[in-house]
Amino acid sequence: MAHAMEISLSMVELIRAKRDGNELAPDALQWIISEYTANRIPDYQMSALLMAIVFNGMTQAELGPWTDAMLHSGDVLDLSGVAKQKIDKHSTGGVGDKISIPLAPIVAACGIAVPMMSGRGLGHTGGTLDKLESIPGFSTQIEPDKFNDQLDDIGVAMVGQTDRLVPADRRIYELRDATGTVPSVPLISSSIMSKKLAEDLDGLLLDVKVGSGAFMKTVAEATELATTMVGVGASHNTPVTAILTNMDQPLGRAVGNANEIVESVEVLRGGGPADVTELTRLLAVEMLVLSGVESRSGAESAVETAVTSGAAYDVFMKLVERQGGDPAAIENLNLLPTAPGEHVITAQTDGFVSRCDAYEIGLASVRLGAGRAKKDDDVDHGVGLTIDVNIGDAVVASQPLATITYRDERSLGSALSVLTDTFVISTEPVESLDLILGELK
Amino acid sequence: MAHAMEISLSMVELIRAKRDGNELAPDALQWIISEYTANRIPDYQMSALLMAIVFNGMTQAELGPWTDAMLHSGDVLDLSGVAKQKIDKHSTGGVGDKISIPLAPIVAACGIAVPMMSGRGLGHTGGTLDKLESIPGFSTQIEPDKFNDQLDDIGVAMVGQTDRLVPADRRIYELRDATGTVPSVPLISSSIMSKKLAEDLDGLLLDVKVGSGAFMKTVAEATELATTMVGVGASHNTPVTAILTNMDQPLGRAVGNANEIVESVEVLRGGGPADVTELTRLLAVEMLVLSGVESRSGAESAVETAVTSGAAYDVFMKLVERQGGDPAAIENLNLLPTAPGEHVITAQTDGFVSRCDAYEIGLASVRLGAGRAKKDDDVDHGVGLTIDVNIGDAVVASQPLATITYRDERSLGSALSVLTDTFVISTEPVESLDLILGELK
Repeated sequence: MAHAMEISLSMVELIRAKRDGNELAPDALQWIISEYTANRIPDYQMSALLMAIVFNGMTQAELGPWTDAMLHSGDVLDLSGVAKQKIDKHSTGGVGDKISIPLAPIVAACGIAVPMMSGRGLGHTGGTLDKLESIPGFSTQIEPDKFNDQLDDIGVAMVGQTDRLVPADRRIYELRDATGTVPSVPLISSSIMSKKLAEDLDGLLLDVKVGSGAFMKTVAEATELATTMVGVGASHNTPVTAILTNMDQPLGRAVGNANEIVESVEVLRGGGPADVTELTRLLAVEMLVLSGVESRSGAESAVETAVTSGAAYDVFMKLVERQGGDPAAIENLNLLPTAPGEHVITAQTDGFVSRCDAYEIGLASVRLGAGRAKKDDDVDHGVGLTIDVNIGDAVVASQPLATITYRDERSLGSALSVLTDTFVISTEPVESLDLILGELK
Repeated sequence: MAHAMEISLSMVELIRAKRDGNELAPDALQWIISEYTANRIPDYQMSALLMAIVFNGMTQAELGPWTDAMLHSGDVLDLSGVAKQKIDKHSTGGVGDKISIPLAPIVAACGIAVPMMSGRGLGHTGGTLDKLESIPGFSTQIEPDKFNDQLDDIGVAMVGQTDRLVPADRRIYELRDATGTVPSVPLISSSIMSKKLAEDLDGLLLDVKVGSGAFMKTVAEATELATTMVGVGASHNTPVTAILTNMDQPLGRAVGNANEIVESVEVLRGGGPADVTELTRLLAVEMLVLSGVESRSGAESAVETAVTSGAAYDVFMKLVERQGGDPAAIENLNLLPTAPGEHVITAQTDGFVSRCDAYEIGLASVRLGAGRAKKDDDVDHGVGLTIDVNIGDAVVASQPLATITYRDERSLGSALSVLTDTFVISTEPVESLDLILGELK
């Protein structure tokens, strides 16, 4: 209650208006973000407003200026010196989702710049930065001028956000986390879009995950989020395409950190699991189409060539070297971290896999040490799971379903305790899942 | 964000549960109040919870323990040494509502103890404490032991709340005021009931005001509030009766401070406006019935006798003396404060009064200086309005409708600017308003 009454009164009127379902004016929304970031609106007023937004939502007319104000709350990248088209991809988060790692080098090999700023794992999902840091020496912090140089030279950089980028989002996200105001489509959208639009992009591809391992559980929810984010892009004159993809089961076989790097490198070498390969190539094509540089058929052949020629793999090797990683650990993947214990989960009966739950597998991975329960937890890069089956697969009794790589018995026990109903074998045939559930632009 | 993560996590789970429409357990509700009062839950979490309560409400099962925890957040009166039945009345606030001032002495004269703790005027409504302080020397602060002695001796004390009584309500109310979380039936109910139940009562009478000059604009809203408060009383084993009364026009003729004391004394002397007399006596009867000491017919004759015998007036004189007031100013009401200016509003045409708006008259009274725009404003006890008509009255052109007593031209101008449409004269006959709109127990 330490703040000036005048400011407090303006804010309380805006809270009341949002509580009563009224639309807030653009300058009021910008005022809220700038005053809050400047510590002139107290947290207790902001959290009341956020809760009112959880209940009453925000219109597209509100969300544009709100996101824009967040985006301009700190530094914004200036990539005007990079001649190439700048396109990024953002995933709303899933289990086994290592797509960014093979995707960015493929797209860069096709002549697009990918200024990718990623996050760390939190909750049951992994983070691209944690996975990259499995590579000995790899640094996800680059000085701004080196970032631009690297983009110009090799077309890709994969880094964490600096503290000076979109500080309003960091402040608001921390407050939302502490006040039960996370699940709100406009608040999620403005959080994602403010950070991505601060990358000075020519286009953005969104991979909106749907299913048990995603934050959006249904296609309807995911469509609402995707529509909202595409709208925010439009109000910022940045073309945005959103793809809805399945997250009822993990993506690919590897769930963890180093093992996901292995799988990513397999994709760059032309191999890898079918779903990871399919989604990586599809998203690469969408990014090339978004850039306007290629037609869809041109993009498809460019992506194919980037992989088969080894050009994408070469870009990835350069990326590793430029960011301080040990290229030997990519040439010889056995040099990546691992853990000593191995536990195999097998099928109890003959039948068909009807459940292979992404959420529970993600949670088990966190309990093994591959993710974080709290923000400051350390990550064990060597542990994780390898999932040997997909929903719909025919299996026989005793066949391995998954292999757990663990550091100690306690973490294994903790992981196994959330995996009791994760794999279900049905006597009846089960259809496999569609990977791609929709597209919006 | 300075608080321990463990506590923060418990609170965030409770916020989420309330946000999602779940019922919180009694021990969780008590924990919230005690931790918040002890500064172990930050304001930003409490305000998020309060906003979730604004949207999702509270069940009676939640409201009982929540109110009880508030009530026990500080000192509670111990009136066990007072042998008489202890009954109080609370009004949800209106314009010209001086009823407590004649009511408490009447009920005390009938052998009931009235340990009345009142509030000050805020918004467009006046406050009993401000009105009493029109009497030169009258103090609304009494030491706790003197309070009990006075109750024992003369059956009535009329004081302000101490800071040690229900601190949780003071903290929460301040936060609600700053965060747009005032309009919530359970939050209003728990605020009122925690303070009243802290008076160690045998019964409580609620006068729930309905209409333009009240916080509840419709009978439906007022009924919801009354039902909720009666339920809180029941869960605390304290009998509560609620009377719904009209507040579309001011109660009585006087709106202000000293002029309301004059009208109160008139009622105690057997006179006064019909509506004030009727409501005072009706509420007095209800309080005697609540006490269990009198049947309804016994209560009616006891109240009649208390006024006509002069016993109630004598109790009021003793009350004034005990609390330091000058009895001469009651014997000779001309000694009460007044203001030099007088402005008469007259009827423009012949006809029938169809509007005499309580809210606007209350606002005009505040602008004259009789109330407070902000908590720390001073009150001018001498200014106010005298309303000469009621809705339904026949009037002729040029007949006075209201007289404004003012200190200076600026405040008169400010008051007149909110009175432009307050009085409406219809050519068609208009029905007078029912004063009593319902009863709940």
